Amino acid sequence: MRDEFESLSPVDYRYWDKEAAAYLSENAFTRAKLEVELALVRTLCRRDLCPSPVLTEIMNACDKVTTADVYEEEKRIGHDIRALVNCIRKHVSAEAKPFVHLTATSYDIVDTANASRYRKVVQDVLLPSLVALENVLIELALREAETAQVGRTHGQHAVPITFGFAIAGYVSRLGGCIVQLVALSKALTGKFSGAVGAYNASSLFVKDPEEFESAVLGEVGVHPAEHSTQIVPPEALVRLLSEMIVAGGVMANLADDMRHLQRSEIDEVRESFGKEQVGSSTMPQKRNPISFEQVKSLWKIGVARMQTVYMDQLSEHQRDLTNSASSRTYGEIIIYAVVMAKRLAKAMKGLSVQRENVERNMAMSQGMIVAEPLHLILASLGHPNSHEKVLALTRKAQDERRPLEHVAADDAELESYYDRMPEEQRQVLLDPSRYIGIAAKKARTVATRWQQTLAIMKFH
Amino acid sequence: MRDEFESLSPVDYRYWDKEAAAYLSENAFTRAKLEVELALVRTLCRRDLCPSPVLTEIMNACDKVTTADVYEEEKRIGHDIRALVNCIRKHVSAEAKPFVHLTATSYDIVDTANASRYRKVVQDVLLPSLVALENVLIELALREAETAQVGRTHGQHAVPITFGFAIAGYVSRLGGCIVQLVALSKALTGKFSGAVGAYNASSLFVKDPEEFESAVLGEVGVHPAEHSTQIVPPEALVRLLSEMIVAGGVMANLADDMRHLQRSEIDEVRESFGKEQVGSSTMPQKRNPISFEQVKSLWKIGVARMQTVYMDQLSEHQRDLTNSASSRTYGEIIIYAVVMAKRLAKAMKGLSVQRENVERNMAMSQGMIVAEPLHLILASLGHPNSHEKVLALTRKAQDERRPLEHVAADDAELESYYDRMPEEQRQVLLDPSRYIGIAAKKARTVATRWQQTLAIMKFH
Amino acid sequence: MRDEFESLSPVDYRYWDKEAAAYLSENAFTRAKLEVELALVRTLCRRDLCPSPVLTEIMNACDKVTTADVYEEEKRIGHDIRALVNCIRKHVSAEAKPFVHLTATSYDIVDTANASRYRKVVQDVLLPSLVALENVLIELALREAETAQVGRTHGQHAVPITFGFAIAGYVSRLGGCIVQLVALSKALTGKFSGAVGAYNASSLFVKDPEEFESAVLGEVGVHPAEHSTQIVPPEALVRLLSEMIVAGGVMANLADDMRHLQRSEIDEVRESFGKEQVGSSTMPQKRNPISFEQVKSLWKIGVARMQTVYMDQLSEHQRDLTNSASSRTYGEIIIYAVVMAKRLAKAMKGLSVQRENVERNMAMSQGMIVAEPLHLILASLGHPNSHEKVLALTRKAQDERRPLEHVAADDAELESYYDRMPEEQRQVLLDPSRYIGIAAKKARTVATRWQQTLAIMKFH
Amino acid sequence: MRDEFESLSPVDYRYWDKEAAAYLSENAFTRAKLEVELALVRTLCRRDLCPSPVLTEIMNACDKVTTADVYEEEKRIGHDIRALVNCIRKHVSAEAKPFVHLTATSYDIVDTANASRYRKVVQDVLLPSLVALENVLIELALREAETAQVGRTHGQHAVPITFGFAIAGYVSRLGGCIVQLVALSKALTGKFSGAVGAYNASSLFVKDPEEFESAVLGEVGVHPAEHSTQIVPPEALVRLLSEMIVAGGVMANLADDMRHLQRSEIDEVRESFGKEQVGSSTMPQKRNPISFEQVKSLWKIGVARMQTVYMDQLSEHQRDLTNSASSRTYGEIIIYAVVMAKRLAKAMKGLSVQRENVERNMAMSQGMIVAEPLHLILASLGHPNSHEKVLALTRKAQDERRPLEHVAADDAELESYYDRMPEEQRQVLLDPSRYIGIAAKKARTVATRWQQTLAIMKFH
Repeated sequence: MRDEFESLSPVDYRYWDKEAAAYLSENAFTRAKLEVELALVRTLCRRDLCPSPVLTEIMNACDKVTTADVYEEEKRIGHDIRALVNCIRKHVSAEAKPFVHLTATSYDIVDTANASRYRKVVQDVLLPSLVALENVLIELALREAETAQVGRTHGQHAVPITFGFAIAGYVSRLGGCIVQLVALSKALTGKFSGAVGAYNASSLFVKDPEEFESAVLGEVGVHPAEHSTQIVPPEALVRLLSEMIVAGGVMANLADDMRHLQRSEIDEVRESFGKEQVGSSTMPQKRNPISFEQVKSLWKIGVARMQTVYMDQLSEHQRDLTNSASSRTYGEIIIYAVVMAKRLAKAMKGLSVQRENVERNMAMSQGMIVAEPLHLILASLGHPNSHEKVLALTRKAQDERRPLEHVAADDAELESYYDRMPEEQRQVLLDPSRYIGIAAKKARTVATRWQQTLAIMKFH
Repeated sequence: MRDEFESLSPVDYRYWDKEAAAYLSENAFTRAKLEVELALVRTLCRRDLCPSPVLTEIMNACDKVTTADVYEEEKRIGHDIRALVNCIRKHVSAEAKPFVHLTATSYDIVDTANASRYRKVVQDVLLPSLVALENVLIELALREAETAQVGRTHGQHAVPITFGFAIAGYVSRLGGCIVQLVALSKALTGKFSGAVGAYNASSLFVKDPEEFESAVLGEVGVHPAEHSTQIVPPEALVRLLSEMIVAGGVMANLADDMRHLQRSEIDEVRESFGKEQVGSSTMPQKRNPISFEQVKSLWKIGVARMQTVYMDQLSEHQRDLTNSASSRTYGEIIIYAVVMAKRLAKAMKGLSVQRENVERNMAMSQGMIVAEPLHLILASLGHPNSHEKVLALTRKAQDERRPLEHVAADDAELESYYDRMPEEQRQVLLDPSRYIGIAAKKARTVATRWQQTLAIMKFH
Repeated sequence: MRDEFESLSPVDYRYWDKEAAAYLSENAFTRAKLEVELALVRTLCRRDLCPSPVLTEIMNACDKVTTADVYEEEKRIGHDIRALVNCIRKHVSAEAKPFVHLTATSYDIVDTANASRYRKVVQDVLLPSLVALENVLIELALREAETAQVGRTHGQHAVPITFGFAIAGYVSRLGGCIVQLVALSKALTGKFSGAVGAYNASSLFVKDPEEFESAVLGEVGVHPAEHSTQIVPPEALVRLLSEMIVAGGVMANLADDMRHLQRSEIDEVRESFGKEQVGSSTMPQKRNPISFEQVKSLWKIGVARMQTVYMDQLSEHQRDLTNSASSRTYGEIIIYAVVMAKRLAKAMKGLSVQRENVERNMAMSQGMIVAEPLHLILASLGHPNSHEKVLALTRKAQDERRPLEHVAADDAELESYYDRMPEEQRQVLLDPSRYIGIAAKKARTVATRWQQTLAIMKFH
Repeated sequence: MRDEFESLSPVDYRYWDKEAAAYLSENAFTRAKLEVELALVRTLCRRDLCPSPVLTEIMNACDKVTTADVYEEEKRIGHDIRALVNCIRKHVSAEAKPFVHLTATSYDIVDTANASRYRKVVQDVLLPSLVALENVLIELALREAETAQVGRTHGQHAVPITFGFAIAGYVSRLGGCIVQLVALSKALTGKFSGAVGAYNASSLFVKDPEEFESAVLGEVGVHPAEHSTQIVPPEALVRLLSEMIVAGGVMANLADDMRHLQRSEIDEVRESFGKEQVGSSTMPQKRNPISFEQVKSLWKIGVARMQTVYMDQLSEHQRDLTNSASSRTYGEIIIYAVVMAKRLAKAMKGLSVQRENVERNMAMSQGMIVAEPLHLILASLGHPNSHEKVLALTRKAQDERRPLEHVAADDAELESYYDRMPEEQRQVLLDPSRYIGIAAKKARTVATRWQQTLAIMKFH
């Protein structure tokens, strides 16, 4: 027992999460390994290779083993899994002792336990968090489907969209990540092929060691790798973790957008702010987008760590142990993804859209927004150099500080084009807020499609 | 024209590859963009939105445009895609000019061109290179399926495998990457949704702008993204590039194994060495695993660059251009993957297995290899502390410099176990080279399964 | 000779730079290696270990060697440095042949050549580019020292600074990088200690091989490493490249600030825009901060590559060659830093400050800016809960849409504090633009200090 | 209080270190921030801006504040530093309240506290750990200065060194890192320049706010940055952390060398192995280089995280908070460096050198080792193509399985050269173990030089 603020990592003093800890704490890891040890004995028992009272004995023993005991024993013998085995063994009779860990190598236990708990934490914690966020976004996209907003490229006003359309983009991107994560979490594999992967040990006792492996792993709901060495090939886990980074990138992108839309001068959205909340220790007026900033910051933690994961892919011959410490940090990548999803969902749920400011900003550049449709309409009417022409008009409009549509309407050269212009195109030039293409419709179709997809999606 | 050795990047003076350059050079990029511009005009034409002589004019114009012209024009106007458009336009009549690039935004062209050429270079160059390597490995796994070799964990002798079994592991891992790359290359998408993704421009002229987008993209064999902004959502490309890094990790791992097996003291494999080849500028006797070293080195280049790709995932609002320079380097990640695959395939094809040394190394530790089966057999016969018992015996054997099996056979406590030991288990203790589990069989099944899979795999 | 647009890397078709290529191209590398080979013969000659006509012969031979010849020979013998040696040897007499490369190992040549050219390119190209940028910033900081601008934290208006003060921060940070780069470029070392670093070869012929090493390296202006293996210890180069990334980070941060200040709604600065420049292929009105975006993008390229450099730090025993390909890419890190510096200097030089918008934005939140000084003045006058008090007032001001100073002045509780308030503090509350602390003075002192420091700084 | 095995990060359940936690735990961070708050009040007091009983009150209050209280308050108000301030304030009188945090902004406290504790943990924990390791290496280099060992390049036998010489290389490299870390830890700076760095707040109350800043920071032994915004410019910390990665690279390289030298076939060194230690859960004979593997693994954790640090360098305008979460993880980089140093020092101290195997391996290739000196001696005697000649002889020797020196001695062409060969050169050819250059001397001079340097080095 230790004061949690004696912790060194923010995942333990600040972002610790009970739900995730049930899979990712060291205690949870111990329990997962014990389950694999039990799966082995249960399988031996099913095949009459071990008397059933022995199984009961070992089950009871496993209940008694604590992580602290295992660490104590590891200190003595310098080997973590053998320590676990010894801890089980010391609670059972001499008759039962030989059946503990029989034919297993350490990583039969470790890699299978990890496959099992990583899959579960993705399915039980990460995916539900992401889906909760996705649902908030879907709702927002539908609600704001018609809210005309200026589109921004290079931080500059471009042509209009709707706010719901912008959010729908994130619905689509995050939805794609959810689909991938479901598939990749199911693709994790375990192993029970022994010290070098050739089933040397199990071959001594069973006819079909691959079938035996499937049976043991089946007890904890894991499929065996097609081929393993002392360890499971790392690629499936690399892909799963990389997809978390990708999902993190989508969330960080959304967070960036929101915090920029909250800039004092733009002020189109605002993070909700508690009644007693303080924005600054010295500037009482401050209301900062701290959740969005935090999400971006968490992304910077996770993305860097993929380098560790990629490096761990290389293991010499039938394995080296240069991933011993580094692979222990993978759970943190998962935790950070969970924290991002939860935090962002809450922030997006509480988001207030400042409609009057959205309109104000849109109005700000309306004249200029017309430049694109004007150029295109002229082109479609056969103007050979409409882009250069309109570019010249925009400069004139800026110099004279007049609306672009007026400058254009007054231009002698364009008279004949205006005459031939279809009415609805002319309307767009007069009211740029009509120039939103199919933004509103798209917002709704994308949001609805994902709503339906999620409704029938199976995580397990 | 410039002396190629005035180049600054090794991909241009050292690893330049004609096959890959056909998709990844700046000239190839120009051509890919021209094809998208043409696809647009062709689609306009199909819908009678543009007269067919105009299409012919523009096709001819595109044939005349060179990258050098585009760069020259870009110097003048400071915009790369507008420069490309101007270059086409200057070769056509005033009547045709308006149809060039009509309703398109720059990234309709750029992102679609990239989706098209990246998919093609994966399908036409990278995948064939990887499959060639995979086939070399399959052949090697089959040929060496029975070659007993000591398994190594932590760089230490463990228990035996076969060399073919070890290679089969790489067949399985690389095979998995090939399957992923096929799927991910097909998942790349393009866009034709205009400046902010809401089809603002195309909506002016066509009823169903999403259908129009599909038609344009269909001309270059690309599907549209579900939702786009000014740019295609980056996730599909991130996943594809990450998978190249994963494949690179598998290749680097194999290369590492080979160069360690070639160490002077181990000497189980040797890279082929040309008749006139020199190993060192000063040590005439040297024969170094330079291909394997190079593959490892190339991996270190690629893996780091994923950070750039992950960072580029974030683009503000409807896009910022902070990926302008960085996204131009993605082709290099592909090139490096191609060079790795080609180089490694050649090295593995020329690999000589020093069978006598494989046997010698195996013999070296035979006594000790027996430790695991001895411990397990004792356990299965009811010995309550077989691990500790055998550990003590191995220490005795080392101290007395006697074979472990002799020390064990002489041990009084073990007499009763030896008496009850099944004959085939006893044989394993006498001849550890029998303790290879199902290594040989597994080598063959894995290799054969992939041989069959590749035979029917479609890249396109 | 090859069309430069057949290149695969943007450093060769887009960012190629003649000044940098003189040190970083493959031709430049060949020349640098030839200079080290010559340095050796010159030193042998100085000690009468080689007849002086031989030196003349070898000098002439080196003039004749081309990179293309070396690559041709490498194709035959598979070793790059032996190929170089052979190319020199083929132009000299049998008498001279033995003196070429005598006692040298390949990396005596390679690492010394790299130390020499990397130091030079930093001193002759990168540092001057950074100093040019620094001078632009100094000038800007001085010119805008008094331009009051709202300070922004979290993207929100905080309290005022001056624009010159903000720029002075970059003067200070970039100045620090320049100082470090000067020191780190001088810390690069070479070696002439032979195949494993123990001077085995040179010890056969000279009494004091370390003194001999110093002499050879002195010819190309390089100091020897304190200890080397086949290669120079990598740390000095790692530190130099890391500092380039750090400098890149400062530049990217400045670029980010500028592009955000250029946002349509903020519009405080604008990148200069050529008369014929085009901002978008379809939106003629667009004026984008493309230089700033590019600088940020170039940073994303460089920063990732440090991972490669850090990984290359590890080389087994007296060296492995797993840095063969990867170390060839270091020059690109340098090039990108140069391009960033040059591009940013140009953009900052052409920057236009929109003073009226700076003022407008400042005015926007003036009322709120008063919150901090009001809270502090109240505290200094003994108000026990001034932060909470002012926080409540700001909320009241927002709800009632009245200036904070009016709400405060009307507050009954504060009356007694207002009575005791010193006049100059009261003035600050009335005119928040006075609340700029020592921003103007600081802008000038920092800028002036660096102006003086740079004036006397020696790069060589 | 929480079971430490409920922790999610290995730094809390496995690598937690009391010595480092005194600076790097969340509790330690709270204490460091309280010290800066106190430094402020103390300075106000010194200048008669605050009555001295108030100082006493606040000192006592600070003693009562716990991290748990602060977190509780943060939950209520959503701001970490204001929460800390409130926690102090609630323990003091109304008279004292206004002086708490007066003129400070949050990051005046945070950045100064971090500068202070990071400098201290480097000086008090990391540097002593690295120096302890360095001293072990120095001793080893001196002890094994004369132990002839084959040099290895590309994993292949090259020419001889001594084991002490190889270790001396690490003495030199690690020594360089120590020197850098000392300098860089002293270069960390703090700030007391207020909310945007312009001393807006402190200027209200003091004449020379920069002098005031120096005084406050002086109380906690920290120098102010030349220029700051809301935050201290990050570069000094980036450099310090990067140097830890560089030091980690040196340690990982050493660990790699040792684990390869421990390979079964090479067996030149062995990690010490506890009497009760277990090498494998199933293979009782195994003795693995687990400490060296762990050091390599820890390096993989740290190196990746530099990406986060580099990304945090960018902060918009006077700061954004997108480093909120990420900067909390920097302490972990430090912890991992400490763990690496401690673990490696212990492993190197317990290292056993298997002298007979060192000799055996050396003998293995002796014939071939002669190739270099033979080629050089022939060259020095005027042989025009000695490299090719000796290359041919080595191939002949390999084909005929005869020692190279015999093949050479029998070669008719070489007769005249042998006749002219100086006696000591001839001796080298007969006994390659003499061909060690100045390895032994160099081992001693490098080790001794660092012994002396460390003896007088000041960390503080």
